[in-house]
Amino acid sequence: MTYTLYYSPGSASLAVHWMLIELGVPFEAKLVSIDAGAQKSPEYLRVNPTGRIPTLIVDGKAHGESAGLLMLLAERHPEKKFAPSPGAPGRADWLEMMIFLANTVLPAKRDWFYAQTDGDPADADAVKALARRRIEGAWDRLDAHLADGRTYIMGSELTAADFLATMVMRWSRNMPRPATAWKNLAPYIHRMRSRPAFIEVNDREGLTDWRN
Amino acid sequence: MTYTLYYSPGSASLAVHWMLIELGVPFEAKLVSIDAGAQKSPEYLRVNPTGRIPTLIVDGKAHGESAGLLMLLAERHPEKKFAPSPGAPGRADWLEMMIFLANTVLPAKRDWFYAQTDGDPADADAVKALARRRIEGAWDRLDAHLADGRTYIMGSELTAADFLATMVMRWSRNMPRPATAWKNLAPYIHRMRSRPAFIEVNDREGLTDWRN
Repeated sequence: MTYTLYYSPGSASLAVHWMLIELGVPFEAKLVSIDAGAQKSPEYLRVNPTGRIPTLIVDGKAHGESAGLLMLLAERHPEKKFAPSPGAPGRADWLEMMIFLANTVLPAKRDWFYAQTDGDPADADAVKALARRRIEGAWDRLDAHLADGRTYIMGSELTAADFLATMVMRWSRNMPRPATAWKNLAPYIHRMRSRPAFIEVNDREGLTDWRN
Repeated sequence: MTYTLYYSPGSASLAVHWMLIELGVPFEAKLVSIDAGAQKSPEYLRVNPTGRIPTLIVDGKAHGESAGLLMLLAERHPEKKFAPSPGAPGRADWLEMMIFLANTVLPAKRDWFYAQTDGDPADADAVKALARRRIEGAWDRLDAHLADGRTYIMGSELTAADFLATMVMRWSRNMPRPATAWKNLAPYIHRMRSRPAFIEVNDREGLTDWRN
């Protein structure tokens, strides 16, 4: 079971790249630099016609959508327990959290970073204002969720939701109120950033900020 | 295995309500009318503190996020085959499609309908302009996806992705370019609307438009 990941440093591929390292499975990582516009190159568009990153090649076929890839990797490697098994306690909570992160925080982040190019540049400030409100609302919700002192997003067990949550929190680092400003998120973030695989993925992607 | 669904007619609960009928499992449906503001009532906020709809009570516990609920119901009733099983061909495609619908179309629809109240009303037109662009982009993508003549979103098998896709397509019915204006979406929509369970859920929710 070998994978090929197309990634750009610090982008939505980060959670997948990190999880692959946590899983300890063989994979090849191919750089497609968004800064260099490489996601629009003919070579990459042949791999993934949407021009979005990440792409993960699974059983010879290209797949996108970072949250879906985390779910897929969790179930393909059940022995690592990065998701409660179907039918296990906590499964419904985990699916709900994965979808919350995928459809509230991820799209708001897209708005925050890409309002200028996804839409009319004249509308970008308005779009970003709503995005900021939603992102900070998500931090409020996750902060309340962690207020019981739990170690990980789903409780005492590390799951794929932690890779997704930490990635989107990282993206707030240059926002007016970064996730680290929330009382219960700050120690959570510190804990996640201390994981050897997080340090490793940052080293491999050449990321120097937002590290312990 | 009995469920309780809190729904509002035509809202994000529709796909879950529809799927419960397709599954043929016992469930109780409780009306929480968004038009009447009932999702902000103290009674409902005790059930679901986010005030979002739907809520599904599963094993005595409340869960939200329509796309996550569809995934959960599919795996709790595997005999109905509303999702490829983990490890089966098509599983990765299905997860990717579910997440695409959940994090591209659903949030853009939220922007389209709620820009005025989720954000600054002065910014609503700008937010809606980008939402419209994204929604129409999603129809382009799904139209191309259906261009091979497939019966359902994932091919020859009906899955939970069809309930989610049809629901979000329904929400475009009063937009400048509704999903029915797309060549390959129109016959797909007609096919889905002809399903007895779709007709049934529309009857139960009192929905009269967007029917065959």
